[in-house]
Amino acid sequence: MSKIGIVFGAKSFEHEISIVSGIALKKVLDDELIYIFVDKNREFFLIPTNKINSKLFSSGEYKKFDKLHINNGGFYKTALFGDKKIDVDFILNVTHGGDGEDGVLASLFEFFGIPFIGPRVEACVVSCNKNFTKNYALSCGVKTLPSSHFTKNDKVKIEGFPCIIKPVRLGSSIGVSIVKSQEELSYALDVAFEFDNEIIVEPFINNVKEYNLAGAKANGEFIFSIVEEPKKEEFLDFDKKYLDFTRTERVNEAILTDELVLKLRENFSKIYNHTFDGSLIRCDFFVIDGEVYLNEINPIPGSMGNYLFDDFKGTIKALSKSLPKKQVINITYDYVNKIQAAKGK
Amino acid sequence: MSKIGIVFGAKSFEHEISIVSGIALKKVLDDELIYIFVDKNREFFLIPTNKINSKLFSSGEYKKFDKLHINNGGFYKTALFGDKKIDVDFILNVTHGGDGEDGVLASLFEFFGIPFIGPRVEACVVSCNKNFTKNYALSCGVKTLPSSHFTKNDKVKIEGFPCIIKPVRLGSSIGVSIVKSQEELSYALDVAFEFDNEIIVEPFINNVKEYNLAGAKANGEFIFSIVEEPKKEEFLDFDKKYLDFTRTERVNEAILTDELVLKLRENFSKIYNHTFDGSLIRCDFFVIDGEVYLNEINPIPGSMGNYLFDDFKGTIKALSKSLPKKQVINITYDYVNKIQAAKGK
Repeated sequence: MSKIGIVFGAKSFEHEISIVSGIALKKVLDDELIYIFVDKNREFFLIPTNKINSKLFSSGEYKKFDKLHINNGGFYKTALFGDKKIDVDFILNVTHGGDGEDGVLASLFEFFGIPFIGPRVEACVVSCNKNFTKNYALSCGVKTLPSSHFTKNDKVKIEGFPCIIKPVRLGSSIGVSIVKSQEELSYALDVAFEFDNEIIVEPFINNVKEYNLAGAKANGEFIFSIVEEPKKEEFLDFDKKYLDFTRTERVNEAILTDELVLKLRENFSKIYNHTFDGSLIRCDFFVIDGEVYLNEINPIPGSMGNYLFDDFKGTIKALSKSLPKKQVINITYDYVNKIQAAKGK
Repeated sequence: MSKIGIVFGAKSFEHEISIVSGIALKKVLDDELIYIFVDKNREFFLIPTNKINSKLFSSGEYKKFDKLHINNGGFYKTALFGDKKIDVDFILNVTHGGDGEDGVLASLFEFFGIPFIGPRVEACVVSCNKNFTKNYALSCGVKTLPSSHFTKNDKVKIEGFPCIIKPVRLGSSIGVSIVKSQEELSYALDVAFEFDNEIIVEPFINNVKEYNLAGAKANGEFIFSIVEEPKKEEFLDFDKKYLDFTRTERVNEAILTDELVLKLRENFSKIYNHTFDGSLIRCDFFVIDGEVYLNEINPIPGSMGNYLFDDFKGTIKALSKSLPKKQVINITYDYVNKIQAAKGK
């Protein structure tokens, strides 16, 4: 049994999703969970596990609990006579969206030398920017749908309808629209540009087969989840997906040929290696005419995708024991000394 | 006149370069400079400007100065009765290499709401990973040399000699080799893989024309430096480049046609927009048969490339007044309330 610091909340459009997702973990992990809430002002609070409830946050009541700060080696409670370190074995980053998935919190953990499960900085950047995801997939040998990329003041030319318009940087379908005709375009663009200065436009393929596969790598071996075929009514909007984040019950496995499962796993592995070391991610794929296309990478899936794994607890445990080590950097001051010598100082 | 916090040092192969680079700014900026040193253990120290000298760091003497910590809004000196905030108008990030150019310090500044000149997280990731740089350039419509990408256990196949082998993630020529024949290959690979798990291999073009252009954008307008043709003896290794970081004297402008200068500026602008907003960067280009190829992006050039600008002080000033604003995120708790309602709690 580990002491797991659950970091959640933060300054993010998915702040609330993260609260729900974090709380859901209480039902599926037997470990000692230490809840560290990042509020919208980016202040840290220690929330007692036996009292945690989503209402604490909407009401602002969380502020009555201990404030924490981050420093070398971990989180600390400020005390009159010296700081008291919060005892955790590692952090599990369940901060969806901003701060959590854009590399900011990952950087904090790296900088302060705090072991954590979650995407590292590079992994965040390639997964939270849909344009970069496509470039990255391409360079890994993984296919994606063709797309066009526009910035706020560009003239947006659409190749054909229906198409799907997505802000470049947000997850959870926020700001995403399916556009069926020229008349619907302008409103959809307004919505998308409300959330980002950049958008991508992709063809919308009705009834496209969509499969989600989560996984992690521990000791050089992949642990894969089952393949899920997400239910959809055309596509899930924010509200519908949101309710999904509370999920803890197992879903039904998609019935697929062994060959397709293998193909999905191969594509997952190409994406994961080695940029996503240290994290449990979900890749959402499209399958069109037997070919696999990456739709998106969820570097911190809702409730960590617990409902997709045969042994979620075991997966977290194995992953926590296989976190990437930082390279040792020797700083010798040889060069500074050389310059001083060269300058005759 | 501004109060500029110079952040430098950090856990990085370029720790020493950063010290030299930071100190060089004393000669070229008239502002009040507040030196904030990040030591190799990632502890912060306030170094008095009138005492700063590279020897302070190699000797470990810096430890006698005030220790700082980072928190919401800035850096603080710990005092017995409450923390004292260090008064700066903005930070100038001159931390080359790790921590500074990989997004870690940028994330800290973002998280704690500290205004800074320097590349943001995305900008760091696309410039410090040479493979990502190529993908990014491509997606901006900027050419790069063809290359192959290998990870540590791959069989490395070389298309032809001479070639140049580069670790994917380091700057300042660390671990880079020119390889003229199969016999030299194995040693060069060992050197490169000592620093990174991934390398890229490019054709080495002898006597290729190389041009450096630095710049920044303030109030929507680009401020370009002169175009420099760097001196090279085959290519600059770490020692030679290193001495370069102490430079404060102006260099000679490359004599180029107006057309080529315009082409370089166009390519620079494509790279800069909008990923590099808030930073002063240097793009190093190759020109082959009149075509411009991006070699690399230096998101924090040595001594901020001060010697390349007609008005370096003015450039820093304009940039500091034009730093990117973070999007306002309203957290309403509507969704949490909806879920509570849906659950009947």
